[in-house]
Amino acid sequence: MELIRRLHLMREAVRKARAEGKKIAFVPTMGALHDGHLALVRRARELGDIVVVSIFVNPEQFGPDEDYDTYPRDLARDTDLCVEEHVDFIFAPDPKEMYPDGFRTYVEVEGLSSILEGASRPGFFRGVCTAVLKLLSVVNPHFAFFGQKDMQQAVIVQTMVRDLNLNVEIVLCPTVRDDDGVALSSRNVRLNVSERVSAMALRRALERGRVLIEDQGVSSVEEVETKVRDVLGADESIKIDYFAVVDPVSLERPETIGGEVLLLLAVWIGQTRLIDNISACPEPPDEAE
Amino acid sequence: MELIRRLHLMREAVRKARAEGKKIAFVPTMGALHDGHLALVRRARELGDIVVVSIFVNPEQFGPDEDYDTYPRDLARDTDLCVEEHVDFIFAPDPKEMYPDGFRTYVEVEGLSSILEGASRPGFFRGVCTAVLKLLSVVNPHFAFFGQKDMQQAVIVQTMVRDLNLNVEIVLCPTVRDDDGVALSSRNVRLNVSERVSAMALRRALERGRVLIEDQGVSSVEEVETKVRDVLGADESIKIDYFAVVDPVSLERPETIGGEVLLLLAVWIGQTRLIDNISACPEPPDEAE
Repeated sequence: MELIRRLHLMREAVRKARAEGKKIAFVPTMGALHDGHLALVRRARELGDIVVVSIFVNPEQFGPDEDYDTYPRDLARDTDLCVEEHVDFIFAPDPKEMYPDGFRTYVEVEGLSSILEGASRPGFFRGVCTAVLKLLSVVNPHFAFFGQKDMQQAVIVQTMVRDLNLNVEIVLCPTVRDDDGVALSSRNVRLNVSERVSAMALRRALERGRVLIEDQGVSSVEEVETKVRDVLGADESIKIDYFAVVDPVSLERPETIGGEVLLLLAVWIGQTRLIDNISACPEPPDEAE
Repeated sequence: MELIRRLHLMREAVRKARAEGKKIAFVPTMGALHDGHLALVRRARELGDIVVVSIFVNPEQFGPDEDYDTYPRDLARDTDLCVEEHVDFIFAPDPKEMYPDGFRTYVEVEGLSSILEGASRPGFFRGVCTAVLKLLSVVNPHFAFFGQKDMQQAVIVQTMVRDLNLNVEIVLCPTVRDDDGVALSSRNVRLNVSERVSAMALRRALERGRVLIEDQGVSSVEEVETKVRDVLGADESIKIDYFAVVDPVSLERPETIGGEVLLLLAVWIGQTRLIDNISACPEPPDEAE
């Protein structure tokens, strides 16, 4: 495995591999790798001849009051994990080379970027899209892998790739959860024991919503919202940022639930902000009736 | 020569050519080709093995009150000219395939896009950058050619390519002028005889500015602005939109003229809006003194 820090060297490594007919599989990350990332890497290992993992804590996606400076970083451990997974290249560019003086070009997926996570974190998705586009330009992969844990991000990146005709296939991979149901996140390390217990309510609340829609045939968005919020509200240490039932493409709130929807939520538990989501699809009406 | 209208066919043609080791040279245009465009095509023919000319009147770069519907279009004539210049592919995509329902992703070069042309034409450069990025994604060229006639556009595209790490070399080509000094433009066909005479003042005014800076050592931006505006003001049928002396990279107005500057102007003559520019560089101070 090779660690590459300079953009032109990454570009050159991929150019050589492509000239040999190799398929490039790319997993963009902010490091602090956990089993969720490794699931992406394993899928990349299946689909690609060359696996590139980028480790870049992207300053452009952090707000001024957010945790850019304290975001967990551990390149030595990340490197060990990538070696175990037979990654070919870690690409860890310097923020100063990614965003040199005078940098001023941004990509925005309008509408989708200003709701939900985007409403709580202005500029977040503009930063994500700009960095992802830059990384795709440098790594020039055949496939790029994103986790469903960050579902709104995945929808937005897919929209960007479609709209800008980027020549890459986006592969989404299921959320990986710990045994207690908590979705893996690099920020979970910040939860103390009682906060960790509270975090278990997220999956439980989403699962409640899924059961309402899939097993009990509830088509009222309001009813699902109320009952899911009730599950979360039962724990006083959980502060709901948002919970929403949305269309999986437009991310708009449907009038009623008549097809697949996403249930998306963000909460604060103490000083830690967590997000999670689940998809739900009502039984289609029995055509024989 | 082959005319391609579908994005996936253009992508496939380039993929094949690249697999054979061919260099792709790309000239993006809005059609209504004139000798200015053909100068770009000839430069492309020199640098590339395969020359692709796109003909796409980009709706996203026209304001609601602008001339999208009446912009000159003549694909038959454009095709003849491209055949004469040994172009390999004309790429003329359908606006509905370029901007399908739900399209919502835009690229913006901040700052540079909101001044000068951008101040007079809000959204213009956002539309230009978005279309250019899409065309570059589909055509995937080694070289792309832009005219200095649209100097602010050229600076903005170069900034976008640098900031987003796009893997293409931008080649700028000098403005082509008619014998009377008028810069070639697809919109010149709209000038009547007396308006055409007025249009000759643009080059004359810019040339006056260049002489002031280069031959007479004028370093005062105000003095250059006043004297160039006087040349234009002498013709009552010319309405100045803007005239500016700016730094060639930042497009900001310098305090004084101490190095290369661009002189940029836009005017209305009757119902036609024309732009032109020139660069000027004062003699460096004699180092022997």
